[in-house]
Amino acid sequence: MNHSIALENDVTRTDLEMADGRTIRYYDQGATARSAVDKREAEVPAGIGELRHDALLDEWVAVASHRQHRIFLPPKELCPLCPTKSDLLTEIPDSTYQVAVFDNRSPSLNTAKGGWSLPEFDGVQTPVPDAVGKCEVVAYTDSHEGSLGELDLARHLLILTALRDRTSEISKLPNIVQVFPFENRGEEVGVTLDHPHGQIYAYSYLTPRTRQMLGVASNHLKKTGRVLLDDIVLREIKDEIRIVTANEHWLAFVPFASRFPFEIHVAPKQSVADLTELSLAQCAAYPEIAKEVLLRLDGVFGMKMAYMAGWHQAPVSIGRDALRLHWQITSVRRAPGKLKYFSGSESMMGAFIQDVPPEQAALQLREVKL
Amino acid sequence: MNHSIALENDVTRTDLEMADGRTIRYYDQGATARSAVDKREAEVPAGIGELRHDALLDEWVAVASHRQHRIFLPPKELCPLCPTKSDLLTEIPDSTYQVAVFDNRSPSLNTAKGGWSLPEFDGVQTPVPDAVGKCEVVAYTDSHEGSLGELDLARHLLILTALRDRTSEISKLPNIVQVFPFENRGEEVGVTLDHPHGQIYAYSYLTPRTRQMLGVASNHLKKTGRVLLDDIVLREIKDEIRIVTANEHWLAFVPFASRFPFEIHVAPKQSVADLTELSLAQCAAYPEIAKEVLLRLDGVFGMKMAYMAGWHQAPVSIGRDALRLHWQITSVRRAPGKLKYFSGSESMMGAFIQDVPPEQAALQLREVKL
Repeated sequence: MNHSIALENDVTRTDLEMADGRTIRYYDQGATARSAVDKREAEVPAGIGELRHDALLDEWVAVASHRQHRIFLPPKELCPLCPTKSDLLTEIPDSTYQVAVFDNRSPSLNTAKGGWSLPEFDGVQTPVPDAVGKCEVVAYTDSHEGSLGELDLARHLLILTALRDRTSEISKLPNIVQVFPFENRGEEVGVTLDHPHGQIYAYSYLTPRTRQMLGVASNHLKKTGRVLLDDIVLREIKDEIRIVTANEHWLAFVPFASRFPFEIHVAPKQSVADLTELSLAQCAAYPEIAKEVLLRLDGVFGMKMAYMAGWHQAPVSIGRDALRLHWQITSVRRAPGKLKYFSGSESMMGAFIQDVPPEQAALQLREVKL
Repeated sequence: MNHSIALENDVTRTDLEMADGRTIRYYDQGATARSAVDKREAEVPAGIGELRHDALLDEWVAVASHRQHRIFLPPKELCPLCPTKSDLLTEIPDSTYQVAVFDNRSPSLNTAKGGWSLPEFDGVQTPVPDAVGKCEVVAYTDSHEGSLGELDLARHLLILTALRDRTSEISKLPNIVQVFPFENRGEEVGVTLDHPHGQIYAYSYLTPRTRQMLGVASNHLKKTGRVLLDDIVLREIKDEIRIVTANEHWLAFVPFASRFPFEIHVAPKQSVADLTELSLAQCAAYPEIAKEVLLRLDGVFGMKMAYMAGWHQAPVSIGRDALRLHWQITSVRRAPGKLKYFSGSESMMGAFIQDVPPEQAALQLREVKL
C-alpha cells in the first residue's frame, strides 16, 4: 500500500502500512521519500466498543472498555510519537518526520465490520450498535519537546494541510457523519503523551454539541436568511473589545458568553463549512493567527497554558450552509495557582458560571508581550 | 426576623438574620432554641452578575466576576462552616448546630432588583439580564471532619427534610424556574471547603440539561403515555445487572449509558416530580440507600471517592408530569491513581467515551464490603 500523493503547497503525502495493518501517513513539505518499515511484532488489532443510548438525554455514549489500560504519560525514552531512531520501535517507523498521521492504536471509535447502520433513538428500547467511527493521531513534529505554538509558520501550514486532507478523505468513508480534529495540551486536561500532537475523531453520529449548534444555526438561517457565525463575527468586529488578534482573513476573539476562564474562537472572516472549503489564501493567512493565539495563551500567566483546541466543522452531508467552521480553544486555568473546575452546576446542569469576564480575558491576552 | 417553623418528623426550622442581611436557617431534630447573634461587621452585600446568551448554542452563561476572589481551601481553623465557638466568627453564629442552610456569601446567582424578566433568545441581539437566582449553602454537620456518607441515618433524614423545605420555599420565590440541590466532594472536583456541605442553586432559566431532559421526557410521554423515568426504572429492575442496591421505595443503579467511571442514579420506585412530592414513607426509606451508596463509592478503591451528587427535579411550573425526580452521583475516578478527564470529545463535542462498562462499575460497587 506504499503510495504517494501530491497535495497543495508542494506537500507530499506517503501512506505506509504498520505492522498490525494500521496506516501511517507522512506529510512532507518538499520531496521526501518515505519507506521505513514497521518492524514490530504484529499485534492483535483493537476491538470495537458499543454505542449506548442515554434515554434521559437522547444521546449516544461510546462505551470503550478496551481502552482502560492505555499508555499513561510514558517516560520520554518510551514516547510512541518520537521517530524510530534505535532499537526502540515507536509508532512512527521512520527516523525523522515532519507531520505524521496514523490510526489510533486504542481507538474509541473504529471501523464497522459488515453491514452497519445507526438506529433511531427509541427510548429504552433503542438497539446498541458498534461504536463505529475513526480515531487518528496527528504528530506535529518529530521533536519530543516544545508545543504547537512554538512551531514555525511553515509547520503550522503543513499541519493545516494535513488536517484538510484528513477531513477530505475521512468524510468520504462510509458511516462517517462528522470529522473533529482537536488537541488536548497539558496534564491538567488529562493529556497522556507530552509529545506535541493532536487527534482526529470522526463520528458515526451527530455529536450532542454539533446537533445543538446545527439546530440553532439552521433556525437562524431560516429566520434571518443569514449565517449565524457571520453575524457573530460582525458583532465582534463592531464591539472590538473582545478581539484578541486579526488579519485580513481571520478573526480571533473571546466569545461574548465564554464558558472557560480563557476561551478563544478563531473564525475565517469569509465563512466556510469545513477545512476543505478554505481557500489557499485563507490557509496561508492562518499560521500567523494560530501561532500568535497559542503564544498569547502561554504568555498570560508566563506558563504553558493547558488547553483544548478543536475545529468545529459542518457535518459531512447536512447543514453545511448553516453550521460553519471555527476553531475553539479553551483553557481551565483562571490564575497561576487556580484551575476552573466544573461543579455540579456545569457538570450536571450544563449551567456555566464564568468568573472571568470575556472582556478581561481578551485584555489579558492582548497585553501579552510576544 | 427570628422565627421558628415546625416541619415534618419533629423538625424545627429557625430563621435568623446574619450581619449583612443574609438569612441563616437552622434545622433541628427535636426542640432546640436558636438565637445566637452574628457579631461580625456588616459587609457590603454581594453584587449580581449577568446572564449572557451564547448565540451558538442558545444557552445562558452566568458571568459572575465578583466571585473570582472567593475563599479557596482555608485551613481548618478558619473554616467558615464550623460553628462559632470562640473569637473566630464563622458563617454560623451558634456554637453547635445540626443542619444549617444560609444564603451564599458569593452567590453566582442573586435576587432580582426591581422588575426583572428573562428575555427570549434572539440571536446576537439577545439582551443581557442580571444573573437572577438564588444560591444557598447547606452545612450537613457542625463537625469539620467526616463526610455525608459517614453521617447517621437520622442526619440523612434531617438533611432530606431541609432540602424538601428549601425546595418548597425557593420554588415560591419570584423568577425561580428550577431548584437544584447538589454536593461537590473532593479536591479533584474543585471543592474549596472541606467541611461536609452541599449547595442549592436556584435558576431563573431552564438549564441546558434540564431543557434537554424535559424535551426528551415530554416526547416520551406524548408518544407512549408513560413516564420515561418509570420505564428506565422498570428496565433496570428487569436487567438487574446494573443495580447497586435497592429497598422497598428506592432503586440505585448504574445507568445503562453512564458517562463517568462511576455514576449512580437513585430513583424512587414510585416517581414524583420533586423532593416536595415524596411521601413520608419514601423519605423514611431514603437514608439507608443514600448512606449505602456513598459508602460503597468510598469502598471501591478504599479511598474517599471524589464525587458530584445532584437532585434532578422537575421545573417549578412546567413539565412536572414528564420530568421526574432522581439523584445523580458521578465520580471521575477510574482507578486509584487515575482520573477520567474530559478531553476534546467530551468537552467540545459533548460526545462521551466511557472506559468503564456500567455493568463492571455496578459489580465493583456491589462487591464492596460494608
